[in-house]
Amino acid sequence: MTKERSDTLSLLKADLNQNRLVEAVQLLADLHPADIADLFEALDQHEKKKLFRELDIDTASEVIAELSEFSQDQILADLPHQRLGEIVDELDSDDAADLLASVPKEVVEEVLASIDVEDSREVRRLLAYDEETAGGIMQAELLAVPQEATIADTIKHVREHGKDLEGLANIFVINSRKQVVGQMSLRRLIISDPGDIVAEVMDTSVRPIPVEMDQEDVARIFQKYDIISAPVVESDGSLVGRITIDDVIDIIEDEISEDVLRMAGTHEDELVYGDQIWKISRFRLPWLLITLVGGLLTGYLLWLFKVALADAIVLVTFIPVIMALGGSVAIQSTTITVRGLATGAIDLRRLGRTVYKETRVGLLMALACGLTLGIAAEIWHRNPVLGLTVGTSMALVILVASLMGTLIPVAFQRLGIDPAVSSGPFVTMVNDISGIVIYLSLSSAFLKYIAG
Amino acid sequence: MTKERSDTLSLLKADLNQNRLVEAVQLLADLHPADIADLFEALDQHEKKKLFRELDIDTASEVIAELSEFSQDQILADLPHQRLGEIVDELDSDDAADLLASVPKEVVEEVLASIDVEDSREVRRLLAYDEETAGGIMQAELLAVPQEATIADTIKHVREHGKDLEGLANIFVINSRKQVVGQMSLRRLIISDPGDIVAEVMDTSVRPIPVEMDQEDVARIFQKYDIISAPVVESDGSLVGRITIDDVIDIIEDEISEDVLRMAGTHEDELVYGDQIWKISRFRLPWLLITLVGGLLTGYLLWLFKVALADAIVLVTFIPVIMALGGSVAIQSTTITVRGLATGAIDLRRLGRTVYKETRVGLLMALACGLTLGIAAEIWHRNPVLGLTVGTSMALVILVASLMGTLIPVAFQRLGIDPAVSSGPFVTMVNDISGIVIYLSLSSAFLKYIAG
Repeated sequence: MTKERSDTLSLLKADLNQNRLVEAVQLLADLHPADIADLFEALDQHEKKKLFRELDIDTASEVIAELSEFSQDQILADLPHQRLGEIVDELDSDDAADLLASVPKEVVEEVLASIDVEDSREVRRLLAYDEETAGGIMQAELLAVPQEATIADTIKHVREHGKDLEGLANIFVINSRKQVVGQMSLRRLIISDPGDIVAEVMDTSVRPIPVEMDQEDVARIFQKYDIISAPVVESDGSLVGRITIDDVIDIIEDEISEDVLRMAGTHEDELVYGDQIWKISRFRLPWLLITLVGGLLTGYLLWLFKVALADAIVLVTFIPVIMALGGSVAIQSTTITVRGLATGAIDLRRLGRTVYKETRVGLLMALACGLTLGIAAEIWHRNPVLGLTVGTSMALVILVASLMGTLIPVAFQRLGIDPAVSSGPFVTMVNDISGIVIYLSLSSAFLKYIAG
Repeated sequence: MTKERSDTLSLLKADLNQNRLVEAVQLLADLHPADIADLFEALDQHEKKKLFRELDIDTASEVIAELSEFSQDQILADLPHQRLGEIVDELDSDDAADLLASVPKEVVEEVLASIDVEDSREVRRLLAYDEETAGGIMQAELLAVPQEATIADTIKHVREHGKDLEGLANIFVINSRKQVVGQMSLRRLIISDPGDIVAEVMDTSVRPIPVEMDQEDVARIFQKYDIISAPVVESDGSLVGRITIDDVIDIIEDEISEDVLRMAGTHEDELVYGDQIWKISRFRLPWLLITLVGGLLTGYLLWLFKVALADAIVLVTFIPVIMALGGSVAIQSTTITVRGLATGAIDLRRLGRTVYKETRVGLLMALACGLTLGIAAEIWHRNPVLGLTVGTSMALVILVASLMGTLIPVAFQRLGIDPAVSSGPFVTMVNDISGIVIYLSLSSAFLKYIAG
């Protein structure tokens, strides 16, 4: 598949650069919009704009909905407003709102004025919600019937209004105040008796999602309760939209990717802004500056112990292993804690249990690594006091690292700061400093047995 | 919600421990099976078994399908085979096969002999597939109609056979050799004319999934093409099962979590085997041992430079910042590369582009950090040669780290080794060693200007 794609890409680029536009479009003829979007991502801005101009409006709107924000912006840059209007008209309301979110306000107004009034009202409404909330990911297109309707009425409603609702799984059931009281799956609709009243056969275990709920929480609910589509409601319980599982899948992947990349000191947009080295550096440099300050502080601590170090240069040789191993343990504990907090496997209310577990694991690893390193030091330098000092320091450093790695993300979470964003560099810094202090304090105490 | 849950949990534990079993079950009455499963996870084995015995067979089978493998095993440990049979009979074929996968073979035979022949044949068939393939996650329950059927025939088929098929979204359309030729969404079924022939109105863009496809690839396809359910086929194209999106969501989350935890040197099971410190240590120790060996090697290199270090102890004070900053850059590059390879944002066939980008980013960060550190060193020790040496070393170390962080995961991927599992400790080790060599070689060259 990848081979095929890279061949198509070469042909496509050649056609575009030699202005064989008919052939270029021909190449895309049998491809799924998602595959066309993949090819687009690999083109440069000039090629993207050239190719996009040639697509028919159906394909263009399907493809642009699949593109990264970065590519969308590149294509929209000087797209004629009339064509933008035609595309917005084709898109589902949620995709239209996403697309228009990055377009200047006056252009949005112009575009919305050019399309169907009902559609533009829906898009305008969606644009008002925060992008990372239920309101920001929902679509306005949905089917709802009053609870007094019969199955036959409902089927008629689907036949009349369901033509463009791809992926429709459920009909929502509402009362006279537009509040959701239940839902009917299409399967249930088909197997029920046409004369039945909807209220009597509907599924009442429906979970309306508040419009302001954070998208990460929405994803958790979908995942936990195996939901395929859910109604979105305003604070008075009235139905305003629908979220479907395909929106949710992308959120789940994005949120985890975001956590991982943040812990490593970069940003999910780095995968998107692939070629923009200034943007990427802006994501990465703050993390590096914290590390730099932490490293200098650790170095300053070494400077305070310079007499001891000069007396026993052998002590210097264990600084890397103490720092590296402490760092590794801290990363293990931080990662498991950040993931545990994100998946709910770690419960802040039962924190004692997590700390108790991590302490025992830390103790076990401290013993194993401390013993191994102590023996290695003894064998290397034939100095039992050195072995004992290095081994004990290592064990203490590991124990402290596993506790720091657990408690720092938890503390950030309690303070309302995303533990992923702050733990990585902070944990490493705290750990390097405490590691050096532990090691050199212990060594200084036994210096007369080590030096010489 | 968390507060509520923790209150319920306390009550539940109290009831169980004081043998108020009716009250205990009463507590669960209004809860979703997924919420009951959450509570189960927080009980100890004795409590789990006690409570599980009291659940009616419907609830018991819904709850056990939601439990972690760890809890399933704890409950199954000495569950009477007759009750296990009743539960398996209730479950969907995929959940039944998952449950029986960890049960001894002779018990499986006994259990399957006790249930409906048709069901047992399906479960037996599913048990034969590798758990991490399409065959391992699919279910046997599905609806299919021949392509000659009319819409009316198809609706009749759904009414007759769709009673227990919760979450059914599509009917598969097959030819006389049982090969999938298309699918009909239930929405399309409802809006089509009863007299239409299925073959004429069906969706032919269906993507049959080969039964042996890796689950991660299945998840990618669902995600990319926004699929809600897909047919699974044998090598001759004949229909054998169905995968739905709720199975896929869990796979996506699991696969990413797995990557993250592997990169940090632990294992996704650590979140499951929460209290088993020996198991957890077994996940973590190999990583730590590699780090230990790497740290000792780095220390040995320092030892080789001991004369230089003794002459200029000031050099020691920059070892932490060189190691820490090199490590940070390496982690950033590794993480972005591992995620890029996993999501497809990085294409092995266009590797030059990634390396070019990473080199430029590395260069920029090398300049920024090298300059900052060089100036800091000059200000601290009032020694321009030291500043120049430290700054240049830092810049070189960062450039090497960003290249290593990109190339090592790619090399592992090429060798067919999961880049996530191997890159973390390996990259750190290579980076520490090359960092120290670069720094001390440069410093030694200028030693006479630095020492004293």
